[in-house]
Amino acid sequence: MLGNFSYCNPTKLYFGKDAVEYLPKELKKYGKNVLLCYGGGSIKKNGVYDAVVEKLKISGKNIIEDPGVMPNPTAKKLNEGCKLARENNVDLILAVGGGSTCDYAKAVSVSAYCDCDPWKKYYLEMQEPDNRIIPVGCVLTMVGTGSEMNGGSVITNHEQKLKIGHVFGEEVMPKFAILNPEYTFTVPKKQMTAGIYDAFNHICEQYFSGDDDNTSDYISEGLMKSLIESSRKAVVDPQDYEARSNIMWSATWALNTLVAKGKSTDWEVHMIGQAVGAYTDATHGMTLSAVSLPYYRFIMDSGLHKFKRFAVNVWNIDPEGKTDREVADEGLLAMESWMKELGVTLNITDLGVTEDMLEGIADATFLCDGGYKVLTREDVITILKESM
Amino acid sequence: MLGNFSYCNPTKLYFGKDAVEYLPKELKKYGKNVLLCYGGGSIKKNGVYDAVVEKLKISGKNIIEDPGVMPNPTAKKLNEGCKLARENNVDLILAVGGGSTCDYAKAVSVSAYCDCDPWKKYYLEMQEPDNRIIPVGCVLTMVGTGSEMNGGSVITNHEQKLKIGHVFGEEVMPKFAILNPEYTFTVPKKQMTAGIYDAFNHICEQYFSGDDDNTSDYISEGLMKSLIESSRKAVVDPQDYEARSNIMWSATWALNTLVAKGKSTDWEVHMIGQAVGAYTDATHGMTLSAVSLPYYRFIMDSGLHKFKRFAVNVWNIDPEGKTDREVADEGLLAMESWMKELGVTLNITDLGVTEDMLEGIADATFLCDGGYKVLTREDVITILKESM
Repeated sequence: MLGNFSYCNPTKLYFGKDAVEYLPKELKKYGKNVLLCYGGGSIKKNGVYDAVVEKLKISGKNIIEDPGVMPNPTAKKLNEGCKLARENNVDLILAVGGGSTCDYAKAVSVSAYCDCDPWKKYYLEMQEPDNRIIPVGCVLTMVGTGSEMNGGSVITNHEQKLKIGHVFGEEVMPKFAILNPEYTFTVPKKQMTAGIYDAFNHICEQYFSGDDDNTSDYISEGLMKSLIESSRKAVVDPQDYEARSNIMWSATWALNTLVAKGKSTDWEVHMIGQAVGAYTDATHGMTLSAVSLPYYRFIMDSGLHKFKRFAVNVWNIDPEGKTDREVADEGLLAMESWMKELGVTLNITDLGVTEDMLEGIADATFLCDGGYKVLTREDVITILKESM
Repeated sequence: MLGNFSYCNPTKLYFGKDAVEYLPKELKKYGKNVLLCYGGGSIKKNGVYDAVVEKLKISGKNIIEDPGVMPNPTAKKLNEGCKLARENNVDLILAVGGGSTCDYAKAVSVSAYCDCDPWKKYYLEMQEPDNRIIPVGCVLTMVGTGSEMNGGSVITNHEQKLKIGHVFGEEVMPKFAILNPEYTFTVPKKQMTAGIYDAFNHICEQYFSGDDDNTSDYISEGLMKSLIESSRKAVVDPQDYEARSNIMWSATWALNTLVAKGKSTDWEVHMIGQAVGAYTDATHGMTLSAVSLPYYRFIMDSGLHKFKRFAVNVWNIDPEGKTDREVADEGLLAMESWMKELGVTLNITDLGVTEDMLEGIADATFLCDGGYKVLTREDVITILKESM
């Protein structure tokens, strides 16, 4: 049943080859001081940094540089960013990068004027912001997380071996996002496919849950089919603009709250993947791909109707003369075959997980109750062993 | 190819049985004077009027009544509404009704402080608002147009025999909309099915256009499948909450700009339907259903790849051993069979069109250039004759 919900997603998106031309139009809505967040410097090689800085300069902004946002942004880095933002009286935080940079920008946005430890407040205790929030804008250079149009922010604490996401409300969502598919062309293939799988898994987490099927499930199937088709083209030719643009657009809608509306969701793959990430610092999308199939095979019998539907509607499996279980199995086999085409990681050993880490990873895994089966800690161990 | 575009849809939606409980939260954002627009009074019979007025009263609002919004709101009524809004210094326009009431509210919103004839400015000349815009909110009681989450507004001028829609920008979109599927339970079956077909046709108009297939087409297919499945349940049991809620939600997304993003669109069925409407004042959805099949059969050969895809992906036609044309034909036959299940009008004769009106209707039909085939006036006559 389509349950009660509210929906509001005010992020303004500019999509296409000329998208950055619209940046000044947005910049003029904010004050002079802009915190420019980015990662390891790849944007300085591919021209994106120059394009953005030019727009900031013609808009008369003071640029406060905040480079070095790492793939899994840390609580330590967050504290440094907050200090920078406060000391420079920042009016806008502009994230130029992928999901990690956007996530980090949102974390700084709610934390800069927080009078206690933001890691504790927002991630350990999941409190909501009650202090000044600095507006965030994004220039996306890597596709996958959907962070450009949602309130999500994942932060890692290496000392505590925890990686935790907080989904903030619409007041924390980026005010605008610049989406130019060409900006993603120089992303290494491994990062591209990790992002594609991340987006696909976001849809799965919202799809594989709930007793009834509703509009959200149908939209999910459309997004999954679009991602599958386009990713098969992009993996052959990463410069295929059409494929990359469809991937970018599908990924945005995979996690901007739409396909979760009116239904329960399951985020267990992300919970296990994040725990793996906290132990290995592995690429987020690869931690998901490495545990997905063992997880889905583990829960399949508890949600067989949906796995059958997935096989038929997403993977075009012909159900004629087969049991539901056979159809469902074939669906997951088709998914596995697509994952191999992409070349995403299919086991956690390749990510650096060793036998002795399993107990710790299981301890760090949050157990969701929205899926077809509520896992026990022992179930997590079983799934992790299957993922080795 | 997914072309350049921008996307922003800030309307806040409250969906579900308790949605009206959130009305006071929204009302407090606006001043004291609320123009309450509604139609022929059905909302006074089904309790919706009382529920809304109670919320307005506890929110301390002055209610300025504006009843009598007709199914195809007229330029004359618009002028009356503008006078009411101005004279009462209205702070918010609250539309309680279906698409016509929402369309009318948006028309008053941009027109009340327009210093010339709004019909001429916004509908004949398609100018954009450069004057004060009064915010609009909606309480939806009839499903179909998507007007609750878009900038569209269709106004009819009976003297000029013209029915014209203007799609305004995000500043005119409703600030909020209350979507309670139960509010649609008392709508007569004919209005329900007309609304369902209207929503379905909105998707078709955006789907049957463009050389390439992209993410929007995949989302469209999902929405169409959801509508087909739920409408088959609702037509048997109009009190089926799940079916009605999925129809309501699909209809909102069928026309809030999402599924048109990055692609060309065709609105020819609406153009012919609106011309039929201007001559007959028939129910909007029925004018669309009456001309759709002759139109699609007329253009099918020019967009055969898409009609084949429609047959396979939306209607589950097995393409094995058939020509593309045979597959496409079977898709339209399946659609026709579904339309008969719904009981929507399949010819314009039943709407009151007579042979002598055809030339005039063709003259009043705007010829779009976004579809697979650009029609001539003679083509419109052919399609109208096929629709008799």
